[in-house]
Amino acid sequence: MSAAFAGLGPFVGVLGGMGPLATVDLLAKIIEETPATFDQDHVPVVAHNVAQIPDRQRFVAGTGPSPLPAMLAGIARLDAIGAGCIAIPCNTAHIWFDELAAGSRAPLIHIADAAAEDLHDGAPVTRVGLLATQGTLRAAFYQNRFAARGILALTNSDEEFDTLFTPGCYAVKAGDLPRAARLLGEAAAHLAERGAERLVLACTEVPPALARLDATTLPPQVDATRALARACVRWWQEHHHPA
Amino acid sequence: MSAAFAGLGPFVGVLGGMGPLATVDLLAKIIEETPATFDQDHVPVVAHNVAQIPDRQRFVAGTGPSPLPAMLAGIARLDAIGAGCIAIPCNTAHIWFDELAAGSRAPLIHIADAAAEDLHDGAPVTRVGLLATQGTLRAAFYQNRFAARGILALTNSDEEFDTLFTPGCYAVKAGDLPRAARLLGEAAAHLAERGAERLVLACTEVPPALARLDATTLPPQVDATRALARACVRWWQEHHHPA
Repeated sequence: MSAAFAGLGPFVGVLGGMGPLATVDLLAKIIEETPATFDQDHVPVVAHNVAQIPDRQRFVAGTGPSPLPAMLAGIARLDAIGAGCIAIPCNTAHIWFDELAAGSRAPLIHIADAAAEDLHDGAPVTRVGLLATQGTLRAAFYQNRFAARGILALTNSDEEFDTLFTPGCYAVKAGDLPRAARLLGEAAAHLAERGAERLVLACTEVPPALARLDATTLPPQVDATRALARACVRWWQEHHHPA
Repeated sequence: MSAAFAGLGPFVGVLGGMGPLATVDLLAKIIEETPATFDQDHVPVVAHNVAQIPDRQRFVAGTGPSPLPAMLAGIARLDAIGAGCIAIPCNTAHIWFDELAAGSRAPLIHIADAAAEDLHDGAPVTRVGLLATQGTLRAAFYQNRFAARGILALTNSDEEFDTLFTPGCYAVKAGDLPRAARLLGEAAAHLAERGAERLVLACTEVPPALARLDATTLPPQVDATRALARACVRWWQEHHHPA
């Protein structure tokens, strides 16, 4: 690290831009989750909110270039100026988690591990409903990381994706939250019927829609972005040594 | 710039953390002010949201160390990884604007220039009301930069500060927005009575309070943070050359 940075310690790096608003949402939630009285109590964060990364969905569909080089370049920037850890506020980007972690000096926080940590804040949980895109589910990192902790992840059927989850996400993007709440709420209800004790909201479109529903009609929810924010705050609390 | 960053172009650097939420507010407003269809259309931003900077007000009051070295270290980080310009979402920090600009490779955008640009989006304006902290007003950079454009800045009296502006800002910090709206609205009304054709909200506490008032009862408002966001978007539009 250059002497020019002297006096500034390590920070939580955020590899963002996928999309830019999800990154802002993570930054706001890091602040909300931090017990702070003064500015100086807050978690130091450097957010690389650069969206000029090839489209992840297109690459997965075989119709576009890999986003990996651009993501690695963003991580190289965060590492170069002293990142102590790096978080990525995009579920789909975790498809490349192992390659990104191998290319980073700073350790990466995995969003599924962060979500799993937040499932343990009450009675033991064995079955959770996972609300995520089909791309995220096919990559199976949530299911695998939950299984390693003895938690079974329940997911929607293909038919439920076609009629409820996918149109519900498009309704959020179109700003039609009442319609989104109805569709995504029904997708969530199917997971509850199959025994989900908690819901993990592992897609950034889902929380604003479900927030419109009566919370008592669905199992308790873990917002993966908020869980990632809480993991960032824990990292800082464990690594911060006040002068 | 290291070859490891190849493929990523220049970005808008944000020297933030003063406070962390004002930085998040700027990032959200940059997104709102950007005409974008896809993630990739958004302005690339790297936000140094590191609040471990000595308190600006305490230094001004002669009771604490200078924040300048920590601010320069943040700028050095942004410069080291390729900032194309740098914006600072904190009015008070602009007291050190000249020293920061002299210490930066990338040009800095001044928040008062950004606000002045936004005053020119309609009929010519010659008298504006400036809602800012006494520290910002004493540094006089708003008044001087407005005067250079032929705009007279009107400010509240000491008595109005003691009875309206300062308690209004504390009411925002305490979360009492109805009280804040009444106090800050009255401070603004005094400026309107003296002939202000526009109001410049040059303190991050003011916009959420005034947003609660009937917009037709006060002169049109320029939010300095939104103006700074718009200046960042203009910088990107002028410097972005798509491949």
